[in-house]
Amino acid sequence: MNGDIGIDVEKAAEFLELPPSRFYKLLDKKTIVRNWDEYEDILRFDNHVSGIETGSVLIEKNDTFEMIRGFPKIKRAMILIPSIEKNFQGIESVIVEEKMNGYNVRVTEYKEKLIALTRSGHVCPYSTERAQHLLNHDFFREHPELVVYGEMAGPDNPYVPKDIYGLDSLDFFVFDIRFKSDGSPLPVSERRKLASDYGFSQVELFGEFDIEEAPAEITRIIKELGEKEHEGVVIKDPEMVLQPIKYTCSQSNCADLRHAFKFYNDSGRDYMFPRVVREGFQSFEWNESEEELKKRCLRLGESILRPMIQSIREVQRNERISDEVRIRVRDRDTIYKFKSYLERLGVDVIFSSPERIGDDYLVRISKINRSTTDKTKGIMEGQLWS
Amino acid sequence: MNGDIGIDVEKAAEFLELPPSRFYKLLDKKTIVRNWDEYEDILRFDNHVSGIETGSVLIEKNDTFEMIRGFPKIKRAMILIPSIEKNFQGIESVIVEEKMNGYNVRVTEYKEKLIALTRSGHVCPYSTERAQHLLNHDFFREHPELVVYGEMAGPDNPYVPKDIYGLDSLDFFVFDIRFKSDGSPLPVSERRKLASDYGFSQVELFGEFDIEEAPAEITRIIKELGEKEHEGVVIKDPEMVLQPIKYTCSQSNCADLRHAFKFYNDSGRDYMFPRVVREGFQSFEWNESEEELKKRCLRLGESILRPMIQSIREVQRNERISDEVRIRVRDRDTIYKFKSYLERLGVDVIFSSPERIGDDYLVRISKINRSTTDKTKGIMEGQLWS
Repeated sequence: MNGDIGIDVEKAAEFLELPPSRFYKLLDKKTIVRNWDEYEDILRFDNHVSGIETGSVLIEKNDTFEMIRGFPKIKRAMILIPSIEKNFQGIESVIVEEKMNGYNVRVTEYKEKLIALTRSGHVCPYSTERAQHLLNHDFFREHPELVVYGEMAGPDNPYVPKDIYGLDSLDFFVFDIRFKSDGSPLPVSERRKLASDYGFSQVELFGEFDIEEAPAEITRIIKELGEKEHEGVVIKDPEMVLQPIKYTCSQSNCADLRHAFKFYNDSGRDYMFPRVVREGFQSFEWNESEEELKKRCLRLGESILRPMIQSIREVQRNERISDEVRIRVRDRDTIYKFKSYLERLGVDVIFSSPERIGDDYLVRISKINRSTTDKTKGIMEGQLWS
Repeated sequence: MNGDIGIDVEKAAEFLELPPSRFYKLLDKKTIVRNWDEYEDILRFDNHVSGIETGSVLIEKNDTFEMIRGFPKIKRAMILIPSIEKNFQGIESVIVEEKMNGYNVRVTEYKEKLIALTRSGHVCPYSTERAQHLLNHDFFREHPELVVYGEMAGPDNPYVPKDIYGLDSLDFFVFDIRFKSDGSPLPVSERRKLASDYGFSQVELFGEFDIEEAPAEITRIIKELGEKEHEGVVIKDPEMVLQPIKYTCSQSNCADLRHAFKFYNDSGRDYMFPRVVREGFQSFEWNESEEELKKRCLRLGESILRPMIQSIREVQRNERISDEVRIRVRDRDTIYKFKSYLERLGVDVIFSSPERIGDDYLVRISKINRSTTDKTKGIMEGQLWS
């Protein structure tokens, strides 16, 4: 044991097949970082390291190690027909599942409790508490070789709150189950069967379609999802050998822009470009009429300008621009742990007093966006744009 | 003389008050670069160097040197009232002139001929030929201490062609006259008188307004200019002691976006963000009605999506996405010089055969945008967006 970082570096390096000196260097450069508090001996990869993706996590367990691989990046189809043909060459059908709009977590067992790892490999105290209540522990005891990948979605969501799924609070929807050893996924039907056996919620399955009919079916599904402002779909090889691809709705794209432009000085710039390009390709792909195109242009313009103007007005009224979210917890301690966690991540938050609802506590959180507030205030005071 | 770079480095360094070793280093790092062909002994600053702005130019002349300062960066007002109050503190009135949409050149005499320097300090062969015909040489002989700063505008413009000024071909509009010695500007009225004495075209003067009435007057002017798709105004201290500021029209902003999104993969990303933010602030500033805001949102959305979809359709028809511009020259040689100049700048061009019009030759130029063409073709073939 190396007291300083909580794990045995020599052994960890051996497990990763890296020279110990390289491992020490990665620690020094903060490419490998430990989690906070009681999770100090859970190391996360803050950048990719020879074949190990960013967000991967290394845990010492019974004198050996366990690697939880990061979320595989899913590429996006800009135009369905050629993308499906090219990406799924050699197979006959694809499975289409819903891509939900929430936040990704991986759940695994650690010291006999479940923990929830975010995309970056942090142990999120809120998601961790929620996972205890949402997931059947038997699965993790009976399948210690597997990790569950899913989407936390619903209104009591401190990252991406959404009312669109008809949920009261928050639920965890499984979309992937993978082996710890090499990160390989279970085939879709096997994964759905297993998840169902343990009573897990799962992302919606739209069906399995022949490659030839898939683009038309997906277009139909996307248009229906768009009307409900759902995000989109992920298209998968049933065997999970070929890489999945995603495809999303204009309405959800515009909802993302609306959220981003509320904080225009912060998230507007990087967010905007790819989303705008998607709109152009989808309009082309659907061969839109003049009227449909006009509607899309208006929707795009409104998604950008309305939230921005709203934010400027808030600053004019001397308010601070913020994102209002909420959490619902069973254990009061989770509130303080989660606040400290967000503060350490550099998020500027104000927590309301907990409000008792049944067995739970509801807490409202204001995430202050200082950058956009300050920039806007400066401009209102005559600061020039360089 | 140092044969290698065409000028006397020791003397040049002394003139700039830099140690010769520093000067050599700046040459090595290509921070100071010589122009091409017959202009090799005209050095341009490709980056700023201790107080000398990017685009400044150093010319050896009669055993001494002449510095032509770069274009001063003009900052932008996002909201008029506070920007004018804050920026023009202590003076009673401001002068408002038109900001034209063309390209900036500085004109000076060199070896008894006029040369036109672009914003980056390149001697542009086309602008140089045009300057010979557009400007009265007497000015430069009688005022060797001055440099003329102006906008080349009109349809025969290979950089920013515009039909909005009612010009047949191209004209040069003076907006600034500065001393070579220290870059200081003439006061506005003195500059306009001098330019008028020599018969120069000038940017339009909208008037001199009290600080208090300026915002309302400028708003009125901007709305009128917007209807003609003119770009905007520059607001100046009559004495040119305080820094000028610019303010522009939504319509011109959207026209810029339309042009940028034709080449979405190339210029879309950087172009978009500040232009979109301007739209938000102007709508707020004008306290727009629901109907006006909707119109602005639609205009913004259309400026982005329509040219992009147009470009995708062109690639679908197997055409290459390009910018069609033209030049009109007196001397056939200018055509070849200009072609070689653009190619050295890395622009991919196709020149048409020269067409005789009166004493001049008209040449149509296709500037091919390979990046957007290739990206679009890839997507149409099923390439995924990472």
